[in-house]
This record gives sequence, C-alpha cells and structure tokens, in this order.
Amino acid sequence: MNTFGNIFRLTSFGESHGKAIGGVIDGLPAGCVISLRKVQEALDRRRPGSRPGVSPRRESDRLQILSGLMAIDREGVPGELLDDTDLAVTLGTPVGFLIPNLDARPGAYDRLRETYRPGHADFTYDRKYGLRDWRGGGRSSGRETAARVVAGSFASQLLETKGISISASISEIGGCSDAARFDSIIEEARTAGDSVGGAVICRISGVPAGLGEPVFGKLQQMLASAMFSIGGVHGFEYGDGFSLCGMRGSQADDRITPEGFLSNHCGGILGGISNGDEIIFRVGFKPTPSIALPLETIDRQGNTAEVKTCGRHDPCIAVRGAEVVKAMAAIVMLDAWLVNLSAKDF
Amino acid sequence: MNTFGNIFRLTSFGESHGKAIGGVIDGLPAGCVISLRKVQEALDRRRPGSRPGVSPRRESDRLQILSGLMAIDREGVPGELLDDTDLAVTLGTPVGFLIPNLDARPGAYDRLRETYRPGHADFTYDRKYGLRDWRGGGRSSGRETAARVVAGSFASQLLETKGISISASISEIGGCSDAARFDSIIEEARTAGDSVGGAVICRISGVPAGLGEPVFGKLQQMLASAMFSIGGVHGFEYGDGFSLCGMRGSQADDRITPEGFLSNHCGGILGGISNGDEIIFRVGFKPTPSIALPLETIDRQGNTAEVKTCGRHDPCIAVRGAEVVKAMAAIVMLDAWLVNLSAKDF
Amino acid sequence: MNTFGNIFRLTSFGESHGKAIGGVIDGLPAGCVISLRKVQEALDRRRPGSRPGVSPRRESDRLQILSGLMAIDREGVPGELLDDTDLAVTLGTPVGFLIPNLDARPGAYDRLRETYRPGHADFTYDRKYGLRDWRGGGRSSGRETAARVVAGSFASQLLETKGISISASISEIGGCSDAARFDSIIEEARTAGDSVGGAVICRISGVPAGLGEPVFGKLQQMLASAMFSIGGVHGFEYGDGFSLCGMRGSQADDRITPEGFLSNHCGGILGGISNGDEIIFRVGFKPTPSIALPLETIDRQGNTAEVKTCGRHDPCIAVRGAEVVKAMAAIVMLDAWLVNLSAKDF
Amino acid sequence: MNTFGNIFRLTSFGESHGKAIGGVIDGLPAGCVISLRKVQEALDRRRPGSRPGVSPRRESDRLQILSGLMAIDREGVPGELLDDTDLAVTLGTPVGFLIPNLDARPGAYDRLRETYRPGHADFTYDRKYGLRDWRGGGRSSGRETAARVVAGSFASQLLETKGISISASISEIGGCSDAARFDSIIEEARTAGDSVGGAVICRISGVPAGLGEPVFGKLQQMLASAMFSIGGVHGFEYGDGFSLCGMRGSQADDRITPEGFLSNHCGGILGGISNGDEIIFRVGFKPTPSIALPLETIDRQGNTAEVKTCGRHDPCIAVRGAEVVKAMAAIVMLDAWLVNLSAKDF
Repeated sequence: MNTFGNIFRLTSFGESHGKAIGGVIDGLPAGCVISLRKVQEALDRRRPGSRPGVSPRRESDRLQILSGLMAIDREGVPGELLDDTDLAVTLGTPVGFLIPNLDARPGAYDRLRETYRPGHADFTYDRKYGLRDWRGGGRSSGRETAARVVAGSFASQLLETKGISISASISEIGGCSDAARFDSIIEEARTAGDSVGGAVICRISGVPAGLGEPVFGKLQQMLASAMFSIGGVHGFEYGDGFSLCGMRGSQADDRITPEGFLSNHCGGILGGISNGDEIIFRVGFKPTPSIALPLETIDRQGNTAEVKTCGRHDPCIAVRGAEVVKAMAAIVMLDAWLVNLSAKDF
Repeated sequence: MNTFGNIFRLTSFGESHGKAIGGVIDGLPAGCVISLRKVQEALDRRRPGSRPGVSPRRESDRLQILSGLMAIDREGVPGELLDDTDLAVTLGTPVGFLIPNLDARPGAYDRLRETYRPGHADFTYDRKYGLRDWRGGGRSSGRETAARVVAGSFASQLLETKGISISASISEIGGCSDAARFDSIIEEARTAGDSVGGAVICRISGVPAGLGEPVFGKLQQMLASAMFSIGGVHGFEYGDGFSLCGMRGSQADDRITPEGFLSNHCGGILGGISNGDEIIFRVGFKPTPSIALPLETIDRQGNTAEVKTCGRHDPCIAVRGAEVVKAMAAIVMLDAWLVNLSAKDF
Repeated sequence: MNTFGNIFRLTSFGESHGKAIGGVIDGLPAGCVISLRKVQEALDRRRPGSRPGVSPRRESDRLQILSGLMAIDREGVPGELLDDTDLAVTLGTPVGFLIPNLDARPGAYDRLRETYRPGHADFTYDRKYGLRDWRGGGRSSGRETAARVVAGSFASQLLETKGISISASISEIGGCSDAARFDSIIEEARTAGDSVGGAVICRISGVPAGLGEPVFGKLQQMLASAMFSIGGVHGFEYGDGFSLCGMRGSQADDRITPEGFLSNHCGGILGGISNGDEIIFRVGFKPTPSIALPLETIDRQGNTAEVKTCGRHDPCIAVRGAEVVKAMAAIVMLDAWLVNLSAKDF
Repeated sequence: MNTFGNIFRLTSFGESHGKAIGGVIDGLPAGCVISLRKVQEALDRRRPGSRPGVSPRRESDRLQILSGLMAIDREGVPGELLDDTDLAVTLGTPVGFLIPNLDARPGAYDRLRETYRPGHADFTYDRKYGLRDWRGGGRSSGRETAARVVAGSFASQLLETKGISISASISEIGGCSDAARFDSIIEEARTAGDSVGGAVICRISGVPAGLGEPVFGKLQQMLASAMFSIGGVHGFEYGDGFSLCGMRGSQADDRITPEGFLSNHCGGILGGISNGDEIIFRVGFKPTPSIALPLETIDRQGNTAEVKTCGRHDPCIAVRGAEVVKAMAAIVMLDAWLVNLSAKDF
C-alpha cells in the first residue's frame, strides 16, 4: 500500500525523522534522457524555508540516485553516474533513490510521544498499529511527498517529449481568490499562531485524446486517487466540478465542431478518457493542523491534555502542496500513456 | 482495468445492449450468509422506471448467480442453489453473476452509429479504440453500475455483521438543497427536454478506528477512486471538504476528549485512517448528458451534425447514482476491513 | 486470487457442478479479429469423452460470449453478435463469457459430502474455508480449466498475427516416452482401476528477443506460475532443466554467432528475457487422483473411512492437460508482449 | 515488475556496480520484533568469499535500515534506531533499506561493454532496452539477491513466531548427490576454468493446513514463481515432482488416517493449499555461466568475438543459491499467511 501506479510505479518509504526518505521508480522506459538538475530543482521548490507560507525548517533535500540510471555525454555514450551528473539515461531498471533527513531534531518531539495532536494522524496510527513513530508525524508527515516530487519530475520530463505540460498554482487561500493578497492572508494567520486552508488548480495541456481506461481506470479516477493520497487534501473536482450539480444538461454538454469542442465544462475528460482538450482540476487543502494555539486533546492513556505546536510548520500547506499536485498529476499522466500503449493497433 | 479493489475485488463486464452485464466478486470470506433477496432489492432500487427522475426503460434486472454460493437451510446445512433461494452461504470461491439485457433495443441507436453525442464517451471511445459499440453507450452506459450494486449488496451485508451501516441520499438537485422541491425541479427539466445535476451525501457509521492504509491506500483515496469510477461524477469531498480552504486551523482541528472527538470537520478520517467517527462525504454529479434538445456535434468523418436524444433516460443521474454511491462505498469499506486484518497482532 | 496476468488478464469463476463456469478476459487490444469457431474447437479438444485417456463425461461445453465483441462482416463492418457468429472483433472492453454445466450430476457425489478423497483438495478446502462444494471437486475440479482454454485461444489468435505459434504435446506417460505406447499404457491403468502420470512438452516459436521483465517478471517465472496454477502439475523445467544440475558451464553456455545461437540449452530465455530462439519447457503431471481402487481416508469428523471413485474420470490428466498448457502459455506470451510495449522507444 | 508478493511485498532495486542495491519491504505487520543481527547474519551467509564454491569478491554487505523500524529496549519501549541496534520493532510502515556496493570495480568490465557473454543476459538486455549497464551483469547480477535475503530474514523471523521453519540445502552438485564430494567436485571445475550445476532441496515445517489460494494463487504456484525469479534456476518440482509422471495413482495418492497422512508424495500441498504436512520442493540451478574458458560469441555490432571471464565468480551458483531459495520461500509463506487471514471467520 506504499506503491502507486500501474506500469509507471512509485514505491515510497521513510519517516520524517528517520535516516532518510526515498523510493523506487519502476516502469520507466529505457533510453530516456533525464536532467537530474531539473529533478533537484523540483525538490528545491517543494523544500521548506524558501517562501512565506512555508516552514522555516532547513533541509538540503539532496537527491541521491542509487540505481537505474547512467550518465550520458553529448555523444549519447553512457558512463559512470557521478554526484554532479546532470544528464542521465534510463536503463529500464528501477530507479532507487533517497533523500537523507539531515535536519531531523527528534528530541523536539519528545513531548508528543504520549499526546495526540488534533488534526493529525497520531491518534489513528496508534489505533491501527498499536505504536507509532511520534517524531514529527513519522510516516504521515508531509516530508514523504519529496519522494513523489522526484518521481513526478521524471514523469514530467518524459511527458514533455510528447508535448504534454502540467502547471499547478494556488487558486484560493483562506476563502480569497485574489492572488495579490495570498501572502498577507498567510502572514496574518501565522501572526495569530494559526494556519489557513487553500486550493490548487492544475492544468494539463497537450494531452492527446484516448488516455484513461474504462471502467475502473478512468483518468479522473486515477487523478483523484493521486490527489487524495496527499495529506491534507479534502476535495477534488474536475472541469466545472461541483458547479455542475446546479446546471442543466443544455448548459453542461460541450458542443463539438469540426475544429474541436466549443467549451470545456467536462475538464478534458469524457467517459474516463481524455478528449484532447486541456485537463483541468481543482484540489482543496485543509489548513495546516499544527498551530501555535493551545488545543484540547488526550494522551495515549486517554487522559485530558493540551497541545501547542511550536515547531517549524507551514501556515498553509496548499502553498507547497501545489508542487506535489503537479508531481502526482505527472505520475498519473505518464502511467496513463504507458497503459494506453496496448489499447489498439496491436 | 475492469477490476476494482485489493482483497475484496469486483471484475465487471458488459455493454448496455449486449447479451448481459455481470461480474466476478473475488475475496469474499467463506462461511458468510448472504440474502439474495436483499441483493435483488438493491438492484430493483437502482433499476430505471420506478421513480420520477429515472429512465422509463423497463428491465427486470434479474440476478443470476453462477458460482461461489450454496443455498443454506435453517440448520445451516448447505445444498443446491435454486432460482428462488434467498439465504446462501459463501464458499470462499469467486461469485460469478450476470444480469441479462432483456429490454435492449439496439435498433433504436442506429443513427448514433456515426454521430458523437456531446457529453458522452462516443468521441473518446472512438479515438481510443478505433471503434465502439454505439448501441446506447455500450460499455460507458450507466447500466454497467448494476454489477456494482450486486457486489455492493454483498459487501453491505457483511459489513452489517460488524455494525457498519451506510446511507446515501440526494443532498442537492439543480442547485437546490430543499428535498421537498427535488421532484418538481426534475420534472421541470424533463418537460423542457433538458436534464439537471445533483449531489449525493453518503454517511458510514459504526466504523472502528484503524481502517485505511497510508500512504497510497488512504481511506479517502479509495473512496474517491470508487466514486470517480462512476460515470458523471465530477466532484468528491469528505468532511468539510472544499469549505476547509476558507477556514483557519483553529476552526478545522477536531478537538479530542476522553469521550471522543468534539467535532467532525475531518469527516471521520485522519491521515488516511478512520478515527472511529462517522465517515461523511459528498459526491457531485453532472446533469444527464442525453437531452431532447438539439445539440451541435460532428460525425465520425468529422462533419458537422446535430443530435437529439429521444430515448429513455433519467433527467437526473444523481437520483439513481445514490444507490451506486452506496454500493461503491460498501465495496471500499469491506476491502479496507480485509486489508487491515494484517496490520497488527500478527 | 482468481485473476491471472498483468495487462492481458483472465478472471475465472465456477464450480464443476454449479450453473456454469466462465470468466472475464481483460486487456485485449481493440480492433483484433477473433474466430469464435476456433475458440470452440479448442474447447472441444479439451472436452472429455473424445479420446482414450480422457473422461467419458459428455459436455457440449458450448461457449457463450456475453460482452466485449461484435460480429464483423467481410467488409469489416461491426454488427450484432449472433449465436452462430464466427468472426468477431474486439472492442477493447472486457469479454465476459460462460460455459453452462449441462451434464452436472451433483447427486452422484452425495457420498463425498463427508469423505475426503486422497490426492484431492477436499481436505484442504475444508480446513481453509470451513466448508466446501463437495460436488465433483467444486472449484478445484479440472473443469475450471475450460475458462483458460477460452482465454488461451483468444491469446493464440492474436499471437499468430505476430508470427508466434505454440504447440504442446505428451512427451511421456507412465515413465515411457514412446508415443506409440501411450494409449496402451493408459488403457492398462484404466483396466486396473488405476491412473497414470505423464509429462507435456511445450514449444513456442517465432518469439522475438526482448519479451519478459527482470527481476520479478521473468518469462520463465510467468510460465512456471501459469503451469503450477494447473491442478495436478508437480514439475516445470525449461531448456535443459534439471539436467543442467549435472552439467558444466562449458557444456551449458549457448555460444553465439552472427547467425544466431549454436545451441539452446537455455530454452530460449536468458536473464528472464526471450533471446529469439524457440522457447521450450516441460510440465510434469501426477496421476489422476481419482481411481476405482479403494483408498484409506477419513471423514469430516476425523473417523477412518474408505473411498473408491467410480465416476467418469481421465486415467491420465496429462492428456487433456496438454491443451491447458498450451492455453496458459499463450496467455503468458500475449501478456509479456503487451507489457513489453512500454520497455523502450517511448 | 520489480515487486514480488501480494500483501507482504518486496520491491528491489540496484545494479551490481552502481552505488547500492536495496529494496522496500511493505506489508509487515506492526509491532513485530526483528533481530537485525540475524538479518546481517543471513546476508553474511549469502556473501561471496566465505566458502569453496563461492566467489572471492569481498563485500562487507553491510545492511543500512532507512525506515519502518525503531529500536526497542528490554522493556519494549521504542526509541531511536542506531547503527548497532539489534532488536527493532516494526511500525507497520515500509522498511526501506540499502546495501552499498563497496567493492565495485567497474573498470574491470570495460571489455564487456561491447561483447555479449554466452549464458548471460547481456544479449537480451540489449535487445529489450537498447542499452545496458555492462558492469558485471548490472541488474541481472546475482548481487540483486542480497535484497531478497534481507526481506527473507524478516519473513523468517515472523514465521518462527508461528512455529514455521524453513531449511534449504544442496542436494546435488554436478550430478552427484553425495554431500561429502561436493567441495571436491566444485574445486575440480574451478581448476579446469569451468563451473558446475547443482540442486537445492527446501523443506518447510510447521505449516498449518489452509495456506495458499485457489485458483491463481496456489501455494506451489507462488513458490515456483519465487524460485524462477532467481537467476540461473531452470527447474522446480514439489513433492515427488517429475517422478510422479512415472507413477500410478494408487502409488501417488497419500492415504489419510485420523493421525495424519501416511505418505507425502504431494509435498504438503493439495489443490494449491497446504495440508499440514511438511512442504518439500527441489530447485535446479544451471552451472555458473561465467567461466575462464574461451567462448565463441558476438559483439554489439554482430561481429564474431571471443570471451573469457577471469573475474571473481562462484563456480557453482547453487551453493549461495540455497540461501536465496530459503529467503524467497520465507517471503512466499509469510505472504500466504497474511493473504489467508481473510479466508474465513470474518
């Protein structure tokens, strides 16, 4: 249950304050060129500490590739993979990778050993497993998403060679959709010792018609599954989404002309299959559950307790969430491409 | 890609106007008693023709069980499965079943052979496969959901023995959430040759804490995947859903007391794992794409065309959708229960 | 656990004396032409009653296609699938099918309800599930393999269009490899109220180099998994098989020349991947466990009992087993072909 | 295709001369105590250089655990995992691990960059992927099996708590089954610049009746699949195996008494399900393909070439293979145990 995808698959591992997080990327076609610099840049964009709205925790998040790639020079000759290699070529074998947890301060979490933080998975992990890694969220930490960003960057680079590009950006923070006010809304929440929710909009362009599998492999299903695997996501809608509940069919049906669809209420997907139009979906994130205000809770023994989170946390997880949304969308789209290869023209 | 689930799995088959639809249910524990009468009743509730808002197409939707069950008498002795058997016992082997397509009128769809209906999968199936069964939607027809209702009823009956019950009902039609007006809104749309969207709310009670698997088997992820596999679904949110984008953490975090959670903004799921509270989610359906009003479209050769759908269709797919939402939720929950058996206490 | 394959997948269902056996074939590429007459002929070859060595049970084994195909006329125009249709075209959707159990005589098995037949799965099903369908083996009956023969014929027909052909024949019966004596050996065993074991050799020609996936999807691994899913199989070896245990490397290594390999000790597979040579493997079947001689056993209560099987059984399961070996080999090879599509040249 | 198992799953990665090999173990129940010392000891037994018959390559094969475990003290209190921790407890989250490739000498393989070694996967990898890591076998190297030994030791330790134990030993080398002569046969082959084949016998005791899933998850199927995933394996048989081809049913059927089975021709498995008796199977390995004698071959351009392997290789892969057989058997048995949890008594 730590593997995602059908042909292109990511298996991830790691707790936030253990030795490292990482993963294994399987199903990459052989002979594809990957820029490791671009992968590192994607990791850097996800990294905390770079902007308002994100945690000041400092991690170098330095990617280590362990297998599955060789360096490739300008003539296309493969060779030894070095630490500073940029261009690498896929071997068709699984890419094992890790990112060390350098800035782990497990001691900072000692008092959480016995106390359940509201809005976190502390309570449910203990109920499910009978024990948990209490250090900073352990496996349920957002840090786990770094592995997805790595796999997503691999996928994005392959998709680009097919003309498919993906963008994801904040569309709403704290109920406000005016981008100019995002930073101040986040800063207000932080100053108040609080946090705030937000939404991300994702657009995928250049997708040919035909990707996605009926009945239980619908493209929207794979995208939704990908998005709800991200911690803190509480809503997903594609095309006109929930607005369609209030529409009539005559408004919602996208007319077709010889030049293409006249509108895109359906978000680029019909019957689970891409129709060639832009794919559009929206992802809703809850506010960061970790806040500096005191919250009523219980400890492992079931006694009343109180918890304040003074650690280094993003006041708005949607901000860094956008990079993860983009990564997961790329993973889904590459997988859909590879699965579709066997659909026809055998 | 026509199989859903991990341990409890439904593989479905069938086009709307072929010989039959059906499926194979795998992973049912042995020795469980199933009321086939209840399964048939669930099918009858999904069946068209029974209420306003649903299609007048008449189908007996008579379930035929082909394998995996034996009849069981009052003393618990297994025997031959007859056509009118109510109580049956699972053998641990796969349950093959079918529902004949009795009221198929393929001729009625001849004119759709060459024309793509807007809002339907006609265009995308042709692009993906190079051909399609044009008769009434073929594989993309809502009729396929009958197989899910069968599997869902099996799952519901097993879940009931564990104290888990699921309800699904219309929460909104055409932008209106006053249930007293639902019938008239639908009737207005039908009279206008149009259709209308709606939303379904689903509640699952009696769920113990601990179901759902991090990281890529989160309970909300499985539920969302299940819901987006239903045709016409464009949105899914759990707990406070998209409203959380506008909230602060201090509002959204559910406080914990020795007696339980003080609120349920999270919809009964934390970190992908059930927390013991009621699980609540909402599913948004688009309006039925088939309407009697003329729509601009193209034919297979790419020429301009016009299409009106005069067939027997629901003006609001959300109405029958509720039964399918309930069925898919049951499939997910039973699967989550079975997967969780190996989590601890080995 | 009743599904086999990765992209091309068979899900099977059915007990030997229930209403029907059948299955769902998923992952068939769209637009492929299938001769249903050839599928029926393969079923007829597997059918009991046609030769010495096979059971006199009479079953018409009439295939019913429920979905996934349309008839196709000489001009390639798809239309309604009729009962006597020969040529059909795949739609890319799952093919549901069934074979009614016409000649089921469940009453004949009443005395087996409480008694475990040695060499059969009666004992283990009861231990695993707490109950079983005692009628003629139920799910563990060889009758289940008819579903595989259907899927295998579909796969074979697709493989033929790629130049791949598969043959399977008896190589040994009762320790004798002289084919001229096979019938008399079987007849002797039958006359003695006994049964006899045998081996099947399978050859796959026309396979291009490159099929099979390292590390856990090796071609020999998939073939072995397929063969050991057949009841009664106790051994599998490919190439020189167990003989290689007695060889030196200088004898076993297949030299390579510009014209190809000089020998085929490796059976056409190197490192889990086809090398372009003929793939050769051998499958060993135990004797039919059902014999007319009395055998010491116990009943469900654990008391001493005796059982003689007077039913209609093959004295040598390897005879009909050859058709099943061929079918499963075809399923594996088509699946390997489809999986390999994403290996390179993205 | 680099993942093995259903609930208990190993995903492996790594080339023999890259940075590291490793894997992710998923599906471990939480709260189980693991001795990391025992895992390291299993790795040491697999390690080259320790005995006649194995390669003199020196690797420390030092296991690094990256996630999924915490240290546990005598009172059962979990804490930080240190480098010298012996006893650890599973968290229910995936165990990421790696083993650095310290003794990699990639330069030693430069001349193999363009030449295909007979009996190796060089030719087939190139055909499949269009390129390969030529350094010492790359992904197809036996070094990859170290990851299996790690997962197998985890599985073995859990199985021991259920009373299940597994042994694997050499039963034959170079056609000789007298264990006293094994070392000299290997030494003779090495002196001649050659290698030799062998067979491993594996016994699993303490297995309760009921493990294994019909129809496509038979216990012998999973075991065979596991064994044929090991490089160099060419044969698998369980119980009396291929000898059964020469037997009659009256000889082969294991009689049942109130005290248990009177014989074990079936190898402890009936109908794909364990019967409570010892599980016995035999695995045949080909001779090491790398030999010091010159072999005729071709280069990447298809020209005639000659290759001698002067590297550090085992003259008999079956010797170290026994440890891998044992590991894979443990992985299968633990998986079968976990899958069986949902079979009955829901």
